[in-house]
Amino acid sequence: MAEQDDERSWKRIENLVEGEKSETLTGFMKTLSPADIALAFSRMDRESQLRALSIVPPKDAADVIEDLEEAFFADAALIVGALPAKRAAAILDCVRSDRQADLLSAMPPATTEEILRLMKPDEARDARLLISYPEDTAGGMMVTEYLVYDEGITVRQVIEDFRRNANVYADYDVQYGFITGPGRRLTGVLRMRDILFKDQSARLADVMHRNPNVIHVGDKLEKMSEFFDRHGYFGAPVVDADGRLVGVVQRSSVRRAEEQRESRAFLRLSGIIGGEELRSMGLWNRSSRRLAWLTLNIFLNMMAASVIAANEKIISQVAALAVFTAIVSDMSGCAGSQAVAVSIRELTLGLIRPKELFRVLAKEIPIGVMNGLLLGIILGIVAYFWKGNIWLGVVAGGALAANSIVSVVMGGSLPLILKALKLDPALVSTPILTTITDMCGFFFVLQFAALLLSRLV
Amino acid sequence: MAEQDDERSWKRIENLVEGEKSETLTGFMKTLSPADIALAFSRMDRESQLRALSIVPPKDAADVIEDLEEAFFADAALIVGALPAKRAAAILDCVRSDRQADLLSAMPPATTEEILRLMKPDEARDARLLISYPEDTAGGMMVTEYLVYDEGITVRQVIEDFRRNANVYADYDVQYGFITGPGRRLTGVLRMRDILFKDQSARLADVMHRNPNVIHVGDKLEKMSEFFDRHGYFGAPVVDADGRLVGVVQRSSVRRAEEQRESRAFLRLSGIIGGEELRSMGLWNRSSRRLAWLTLNIFLNMMAASVIAANEKIISQVAALAVFTAIVSDMSGCAGSQAVAVSIRELTLGLIRPKELFRVLAKEIPIGVMNGLLLGIILGIVAYFWKGNIWLGVVAGGALAANSIVSVVMGGSLPLILKALKLDPALVSTPILTTITDMCGFFFVLQFAALLLSRLV
Repeated sequence: MAEQDDERSWKRIENLVEGEKSETLTGFMKTLSPADIALAFSRMDRESQLRALSIVPPKDAADVIEDLEEAFFADAALIVGALPAKRAAAILDCVRSDRQADLLSAMPPATTEEILRLMKPDEARDARLLISYPEDTAGGMMVTEYLVYDEGITVRQVIEDFRRNANVYADYDVQYGFITGPGRRLTGVLRMRDILFKDQSARLADVMHRNPNVIHVGDKLEKMSEFFDRHGYFGAPVVDADGRLVGVVQRSSVRRAEEQRESRAFLRLSGIIGGEELRSMGLWNRSSRRLAWLTLNIFLNMMAASVIAANEKIISQVAALAVFTAIVSDMSGCAGSQAVAVSIRELTLGLIRPKELFRVLAKEIPIGVMNGLLLGIILGIVAYFWKGNIWLGVVAGGALAANSIVSVVMGGSLPLILKALKLDPALVSTPILTTITDMCGFFFVLQFAALLLSRLV
Repeated sequence: MAEQDDERSWKRIENLVEGEKSETLTGFMKTLSPADIALAFSRMDRESQLRALSIVPPKDAADVIEDLEEAFFADAALIVGALPAKRAAAILDCVRSDRQADLLSAMPPATTEEILRLMKPDEARDARLLISYPEDTAGGMMVTEYLVYDEGITVRQVIEDFRRNANVYADYDVQYGFITGPGRRLTGVLRMRDILFKDQSARLADVMHRNPNVIHVGDKLEKMSEFFDRHGYFGAPVVDADGRLVGVVQRSSVRRAEEQRESRAFLRLSGIIGGEELRSMGLWNRSSRRLAWLTLNIFLNMMAASVIAANEKIISQVAALAVFTAIVSDMSGCAGSQAVAVSIRELTLGLIRPKELFRVLAKEIPIGVMNGLLLGIILGIVAYFWKGNIWLGVVAGGALAANSIVSVVMGGSLPLILKALKLDPALVSTPILTTITDMCGFFFVLQFAALLLSRLV
């Protein structure tokens, strides 16, 4: 879609909503990609959003809601929750089960319950099952739309079922059929494309792959990631403790959850906590979440700056030191951030384990020393030429060299330590790193200066 | 794989390599997931890596190379390039065409040419085709392994071909068959599962979907992303200017490229430039890339700190100001980073366009004012209680409030401006933001102090 059209799409939707032109609206929205829908909805006010979802058929409204979710549009649950419960239920009936569960879990419990009561009984049953599992487990991420056949039937019966229910299966991933025995216990998996090669009168029990690889309903995201890293499947059966088939986790759902986790890490690293912030959200909501983070930081900053306060006398004698406290603390922050990023990335890729602190130290210390010395020499030379005092160069350069080593070593190891303590490295590394490297930076500049004070004044 | 096993896997590989136990090694490596392989190889020295790839059959070595690439292991091309050319060619013959091209493009041209000459003629021809396209276009990302049939043949002939070549197709994505007419022009697409429902004597021309959605060989990643956002396909045909079918781009390749782009953005934002840095890379390589970034920053830092240098006299009279220059510049950096992160994220999600600067300003100014005032009040109160001087509180609080507004507004708009200028927001935003907000912060503290100097000393 060309750029000039983008801006018009939400105005067009709003106009169609106002004119109650349900059919034209339905048709128009179908031409938009998920990204277009997310963009358009992000620019509409809540009232237009709700009316747009109310005047089109539920099935089409469900597509829009899935599109919003797809684009990580954090508002999707808020919008559905704000609809009249009956309408929300009709829309959710048409949404894929894993997304149903995501949306319902994100609403206040009373709203969830009210909507569930108004949904189709079988849809509500599936949804209740899914939301009973924690969101980041297989149970919370699986879908309940999949092909399942009894091991006793024949290939011909499968093909007939497949033809008869082509409509129902239109939205399914039909690459695999899951085969169960007595008590719905999973006994095998059938790659659907293989049934082309099979004798049509064969029983499934004789043509299926036995002992399939399974995911357990309580498995966490890490475990599922590893599963799909190891196996090339597009989806995997989920079983409960008794080996009963309860759902299917799709590779794409796992990849999507990983992406969301990475996006959250990116935002947290920059101090956007509590999930996605979009500018379409309310001012107070955005402002207060950012402020929570800043307030913590201002106290950490004051703590760090107290090192300067304690050395006020030295500064009043050599005011030029204020220039170097600023440069040394900022530069160490830069050098430390690089090491933090490499550690977070290696943790994400599984190339390092939290207990391998020694490896990180062995790899970061040489870099800290090399880069610290080089930067220290640059700053020392500049300081010397500025004031014509070699000792000022020694203080500035020495402090930067020492502090770069501290911050690189600390930046590299902090994420591992935080991970081992079950804290989020992306969220906690930066404030701790900055506070400590600021304190050390101030300390080195001012203490080196105190030692050489007679040569500086 | 349990944690205690992880560490042993590369030692086990090294032992098997030393003992030349080719078969055991092949078997063992097959049990490892791509993440395990990447972890193990990241801990082995180059010599062991090369020997491991030399003593197993080429097909298995190719699996290892694909695993390394999968885990974003930046070393994969270096390893293949370091192998004897004949061995490298034998391995690359077995690698999927899009990865072949990625690996060959990353090597020195002479090495690429030597390996291509030793590869199987048809594999080399495909690889030459792919590397002739820029890496971030459809031509560079497509695969040449796909099902293609002439529109004149029948459904029965397709099924027969499918059965006959099941082995060849084992690694293909066989969800779609692409149908061509005279001159290899793409005329239709067939969803392979649909052939179950078709009359076996029907000609493909009569059962295929005509006018399929296509990707053009020169399309860039953004365009392909949008394509797969809009359409639910697992893969799409790539055509040249004359409508001839030249390859297939898979949804998963596009998603992978997007992920890599996001990872690079994450790393750049933290000052890791020039692509992935892993601790298994050489010290000099890692150190010099980080240093390039730090050297730029030290000069920016000196520029910012020159504002303090210019106001040395004020500091020597009120040394406490050195405390507040530090706090104000750091805090503004925090507040600005939050706004940068939200803008980068909205740009990534396509929720904002570079030219919508006004929208960002309208959304960020209120936050800047609210949070700036609140933080300013906190700092002002602390400053007042520390020295018992209300005017010091006014200077510190006022400077922080003013600078927070500057940095939030600037942080929000910089990524859009950089994007419009075709610069990378993740790489360039932070240094520019930090330099300017540091300068402004120092300026506000010291100028407010100069105005109220008589009340401060």
